[in-house]
Amino acid sequence: MAQRHLDPTAGPVAGDTLAAYLQAQATEFLRALRQHRETGGMGGGTPARAYSSVGENGTEEAVDAARALRRSARRISGTLHTFRPLLDEGWSEGMRPELAWLSGTLAREHAYGARLERLLAALHRLSGSSAFPSQASDPDPSVGPRHPQLAQEKGNLTVGAAKAGALLERQLTLARTRAHSAALQALGSSRFHAVADNVAVLASEVPLTPAATTAGLEPLAAAAEERLGDAVTGLPLITAGHPYNAEALVHGLSADTAPQPQDAPWHQVRLLLRLHRYAREVLYGDETPVDVRLLSAGQALNRHRDAAEAAAAAASAARTPRIAPATAYALGVLHADQRHEVEAARFAFQRAWLRETVGTP
Amino acid sequence: MAQRHLDPTAGPVAGDTLAAYLQAQATEFLRALRQHRETGGMGGGTPARAYSSVGENGTEEAVDAARALRRSARRISGTLHTFRPLLDEGWSEGMRPELAWLSGTLAREHAYGARLERLLAALHRLSGSSAFPSQASDPDPSVGPRHPQLAQEKGNLTVGAAKAGALLERQLTLARTRAHSAALQALGSSRFHAVADNVAVLASEVPLTPAATTAGLEPLAAAAEERLGDAVTGLPLITAGHPYNAEALVHGLSADTAPQPQDAPWHQVRLLLRLHRYAREVLYGDETPVDVRLLSAGQALNRHRDAAEAAAAAASAARTPRIAPATAYALGVLHADQRHEVEAARFAFQRAWLRETVGTP
Repeated sequence: MAQRHLDPTAGPVAGDTLAAYLQAQATEFLRALRQHRETGGMGGGTPARAYSSVGENGTEEAVDAARALRRSARRISGTLHTFRPLLDEGWSEGMRPELAWLSGTLAREHAYGARLERLLAALHRLSGSSAFPSQASDPDPSVGPRHPQLAQEKGNLTVGAAKAGALLERQLTLARTRAHSAALQALGSSRFHAVADNVAVLASEVPLTPAATTAGLEPLAAAAEERLGDAVTGLPLITAGHPYNAEALVHGLSADTAPQPQDAPWHQVRLLLRLHRYAREVLYGDETPVDVRLLSAGQALNRHRDAAEAAAAAASAARTPRIAPATAYALGVLHADQRHEVEAARFAFQRAWLRETVGTP
Repeated sequence: MAQRHLDPTAGPVAGDTLAAYLQAQATEFLRALRQHRETGGMGGGTPARAYSSVGENGTEEAVDAARALRRSARRISGTLHTFRPLLDEGWSEGMRPELAWLSGTLAREHAYGARLERLLAALHRLSGSSAFPSQASDPDPSVGPRHPQLAQEKGNLTVGAAKAGALLERQLTLARTRAHSAALQALGSSRFHAVADNVAVLASEVPLTPAATTAGLEPLAAAAEERLGDAVTGLPLITAGHPYNAEALVHGLSADTAPQPQDAPWHQVRLLLRLHRYAREVLYGDETPVDVRLLSAGQALNRHRDAAEAAAAAASAARTPRIAPATAYALGVLHADQRHEVEAARFAFQRAWLRETVGTP
C-alpha cells in the first residue's frame, strides 16, 4: 500500500493488485477465525459430540469456518510463493511454513472424514445395492457394523464387507478424532496466535518490496503456469490416455508400505495447478474468468489424491492383526477398486488437459 | 452328397457346400483323434507327467491334437445348429449334445491351465517386477511357493501374493489333473466311441434333407448373423463405451457365489459370434475373408470370459478355510483386478463392434 504513493501518476501497479488480493484473503482468514471461535469450533463440546451433531447449526458453521480458514491460508501461502520477488523476503519466507502447518493441521481432520465416506460408499457399491447399509452420510464414532443381523444373513463376502466397513470406520474415526483434537490444540497454541497476528498485519499492511512498483505480476504468474506445464510434460499422459492400462494397480501387492512412488508426480501437478489457479485470482480478482479445463483438471487431480489415500487406508487396515480372512479379502477388493479410481482420475485429467491443448489456438 | 445327383444341371447347391464343410471337419476330427492316440494322449503317462513334460514332443502333440479335436467338434456342432433345416433332424439333434459334451470335457482341462497361467501372471504384475516369481510358463503340480525364502524377505502383502499364488496353483492344478483324467476317461468311453462312429459316418456321407437341394445357405447364415446382432443390441454398450464405468465390479462383494448375472449376455454373444464365424466358413470355405472386426470382437469376448472365470476362481480360493488374512487380501486384489479386466474387455468389444458399424457402408 505504501508504495502506491511513491508514483501517484501510475495506474494500478503490481503492488496494488497483489496487496488488494492478500488483504482480501487475510480479511477472510480473520473473519473465518472469528466465526470458528463463535460457533464453538474452539471447544464447548467433546470432539465426538462435534461429529455426531453435524445437523446442529453451531457445528456445521464451525466446519464451514474451518474450511474457510484453510482456504484463505492456502491462498495467502501460495501467493507469497508465486510472487515472492515482490514481497519482503524474510517476512514471507517466515510466514509460509507456518501457514502450511496450519492448513495441513486443519485439513487432516476433514481428510479422514472424507476418506471414510469415500471408502464406505465404495463398499456399499461393491456389495450390491441391498447388502451393505450405507453409513457414509451419517458417520458414527461408535464401533461395529450397524446391522449385524443383516450381515449374518448374507454370505461370507458380505460379512467381510461389513466387517471391513466397521474396521475402517473405527480406524478412520479414531484418526479423525485425534486430528480434531490436534486442530483444536493448534488453534489454541501460541504458534497459531503468532500466525494470526501476522495475518492481521497483512490485512492492513502488505510488506511489498520496491520491485512491486516497477515489475509486473504477469511474468511471475506466467512462470507459475510454466512450472505447471513442465510438470505435466513429465506425466505419463500417453499411458493415462489409454483406458484400462492397469498401471495404477502395478505394485498393488508389493511389499512397500510407503505411498506409491508413481503417484508423486501427479500430486505435484495438483499443487502446481492450484498455484496457477491462485495466480490467476491475483491477476483478475473478482473477474477471474471460469476456466472449465482448469476446473475439470483440478477435480480429476483431487479425485486422484483422494482415491490414492483411500486405497492406502484400505491396505493399511488390512495389516491390522487378527482380522478375519473375509475382512482382509474385502479390503483387498476395496484397495484395488480405489487404485482403479486413481487410474480413472488420470484418464480424466488427460482428457481435460488434452481438451485444453486442442482448444487453445 | 447323394442329393447332388438329383439335378445334375444345377451348380454347387447348398447341400454340396454344406456337406463339403462338414466332411472336411469330420476328417479333421478323425485325424486329430488318431494323432491324440498316437501321441500318448490316451494314456502312457500319469496326468502329472503329462503336464511336467510339456517340452517333450509327444505331450505337446497330444495337446495340439486335443485342441484340434475340440476345434472340429465345435465347428461340426455349430454347423448342425445353424443349418439344421438342411440336415436330417433326428440325426443332428442326437449328435449335437454329444459333441457339446465332448468339446466341453476336453475344454475343461485346457481352461484350468489357462486360468492358472492368467492368475499367476496377474499376481506377478501386481507384485511388482521383482517380488513374485512367475510360475506361469512352467506350472508344477507340487504344492507351495517356489521361492519361500524370497517371500519371507518381503513384506506382508507380498507374502500374501506368494501364498495366494501357491493356493491357486494347488487348487487349479488339482482341478486340471481331474479334468485331464475325466477327459481320458471320456475318450475311452463307449459314449465317445459312438460319437467317433457318427463323425466317421459324417466324413463319408452327410445326411442332408431334400431341402438342401432347393434352399440356399445364405438365409440360414443371415439368420445366425441376425441372432448375433439382436443379442449385441441387448448389451449395455453405451455404459461399456465409457471407460472406468466401474460396472464389472458392482456386486464384487455381494454374497452371491454364482457367476455374475451381468456376464451372461456377454457370454451369450460370444457363442453367437462363434456360430456366425462358422457359418461364414461354411459359405466361403477356404476363401473366407479375414474379418478384423469379428476377430477383435471375438478376442475381446474370449478375454471377457477368461477374466470373469479367473475372477471367480480368485473369489472361490478366498473361501478356503483357515487361510491367512494376507492371502485373502491378495486374492481380493486379484479378484478386483480380473473384474477390471472384464470391464476392459467389454470396452474393447464395444470399440471393435462400433468400428464395424461405422465401417459398414
